[in-house]
Amino acid sequence: MSVYTRPLARLIEHLQKLPGVGPKTAQRLALHLIQRPEAEIAAFAEALLAAKQQVGHCQRCFHLSSEDLCNICRDPKRDAQTICVVADPRDVIALEKTREYKGLYHVLGGLISPMDGIGPEQLTVQALVRRVAQEQTQEVIMAISPSVEGETTTLYVGQLLKPFTRVTRIAFGLPMGGDLEYADEVTLARALEGRRDLT
Amino acid sequence: MSVYTRPLARLIEHLQKLPGVGPKTAQRLALHLIQRPEAEIAAFAEALLAAKQQVGHCQRCFHLSSEDLCNICRDPKRDAQTICVVADPRDVIALEKTREYKGLYHVLGGLISPMDGIGPEQLTVQALVRRVAQEQTQEVIMAISPSVEGETTTLYVGQLLKPFTRVTRIAFGLPMGGDLEYADEVTLARALEGRRDLT
Repeated sequence: MSVYTRPLARLIEHLQKLPGVGPKTAQRLALHLIQRPEAEIAAFAEALLAAKQQVGHCQRCFHLSSEDLCNICRDPKRDAQTICVVADPRDVIALEKTREYKGLYHVLGGLISPMDGIGPEQLTVQALVRRVAQEQTQEVIMAISPSVEGETTTLYVGQLLKPFTRVTRIAFGLPMGGDLEYADEVTLARALEGRRDLT
Repeated sequence: MSVYTRPLARLIEHLQKLPGVGPKTAQRLALHLIQRPEAEIAAFAEALLAAKQQVGHCQRCFHLSSEDLCNICRDPKRDAQTICVVADPRDVIALEKTREYKGLYHVLGGLISPMDGIGPEQLTVQALVRRVAQEQTQEVIMAISPSVEGETTTLYVGQLLKPFTRVTRIAFGLPMGGDLEYADEVTLARALEGRRDLT
């Protein structure tokens, strides 16, 4: 016999499926939730369903969007001649939070990884090439994490796009606040390689 | 303009209200959730509503229950002559997990705390006294954490119940695996005070 009454046990089960939530946390969250006002729980359940049902992908850049075009693609103040290519919608969110970038994005939806059976055709690479060819893009910035799969993807996509536009990639090096002494060798090597003239 | 599309922003807002969930975790959970199959999300939302709507309190012991009497009170194999008094349903769950206790429970719903305006009348103390008087209870075990409010509650409830039954309290002392050297003085004092004959 479970120590929880059935509806509570079911809720705990669902909460436990969330990333980083174990049995203890799931219990704590469930007991918290059933103490909240009914209206709040109804709104939460509604928000959950709405997010799942309404959030799809932008037809142009494949970022998360509840409409055909995402907020960023619809914004007339953005520079439509620059496209930043990222692996995941999370990366768009991280870049947007810098408030530094004014161009558009293109979300690949993953990285090329033959080991996991993910080739360019599982990603939005073809749509990107078509888009760059059509949109008179001036620059494509590859903003992909420097893993093995990331490098492969950056090089592959870069080769495809070079006939149409200038292709750049974000800088790799010592992170701000990073300590040279504790940086790993690969990071240091990339930082040396990417050195620039003092202006 | 938010970096999230509206339905996603709303879901993140709700997730952020959960205890121990900050903006980063809420974002991670929300992005995880919208990738799950629709059926799973529907079941989650349904479990949330069901738990809120169906889980109330056992009419006898005030533990969480979706029926008039909780699983424990309904179980004929439990020893109905012993009642363990706890502050919170969480305490029942913790004690049940030991699989050591075979009696029934009584959940007070909090601790007496004049500072927070919580007196015995805000708790289920009266129901407990009535229950003990009616049910021919042989022993009441007070299992309340040893804080200022906990001590007050234990002593107050103990005084009320003594005319009707034997009242005991759980032992305080060094936790299993605890190191005497690192135990605080109050714990050590309680451990000394609670010493027992070697058998």
